[in-house]
Amino acid sequence: MKIDPVPAFEPPYVMAVFSNVRTPDETGFPDTEARMVEIVSKNPGLLGYESARTPGGLGITVAYFRDHESLAAWRKDTEHQAAMKHGRAHWYESYTLHVGTVERSHGHVRNA
Amino acid sequence: MKIDPVPAFEPPYVMAVFSNVRTPDETGFPDTEARMVEIVSKNPGLLGYESARTPGGLGITVAYFRDHESLAAWRKDTEHQAAMKHGRAHWYESYTLHVGTVERSHGHVRNA
Repeated sequence: MKIDPVPAFEPPYVMAVFSNVRTPDETGFPDTEARMVEIVSKNPGLLGYESARTPGGLGITVAYFRDHESLAAWRKDTEHQAAMKHGRAHWYESYTLHVGTVERSHGHVRNA
Repeated sequence: MKIDPVPAFEPPYVMAVFSNVRTPDETGFPDTEARMVEIVSKNPGLLGYESARTPGGLGITVAYFRDHESLAAWRKDTEHQAAMKHGRAHWYESYTLHVGTVERSHGHVRNA
């Protein structure tokens, strides 16, 4: 599978950076993660998302939305809220969420 | 080594998300990366940075700055500019940079 960085979009748009350290508790995590992807993918304001995790270390997921209203809809989703609550109790040792507005962006592809 | 997510700071602040896929070319990369860390760490406006890489896949690095002027100083650093140029030619298959202003953020630590 080829994995590409999410491309640059026309500013302004919104980005939410979720950086986290997981607990060893995997119970329910893969299923919930798949369900969250399914839900957020139906959000018409979702531009894209990307994720990286250093084995045994930090994970960073970034979601890009057209506007704050689209992100708010995702934040308020009842299944997402339940997952966040469970995640705080079981899956995440620590996390930080930074939400902001993208003012400029650019991409580069080698030899393209 | 304990790796923590960069904490939430008092908004507004600036974040730069650099998501990338590397080439197999490692020549000079570790030394340059160490040197870049050394340079950016001297930037008085740097709040923190964090990085994650899925083996064989996507890497995401996020740097947080107090303001756009601090980020501009980092962007204009001559050694950094030379490293970016070399990186485009040799180290990165593709990348995207998204720069924006953080409007809200929060952190969570389990059982703390």
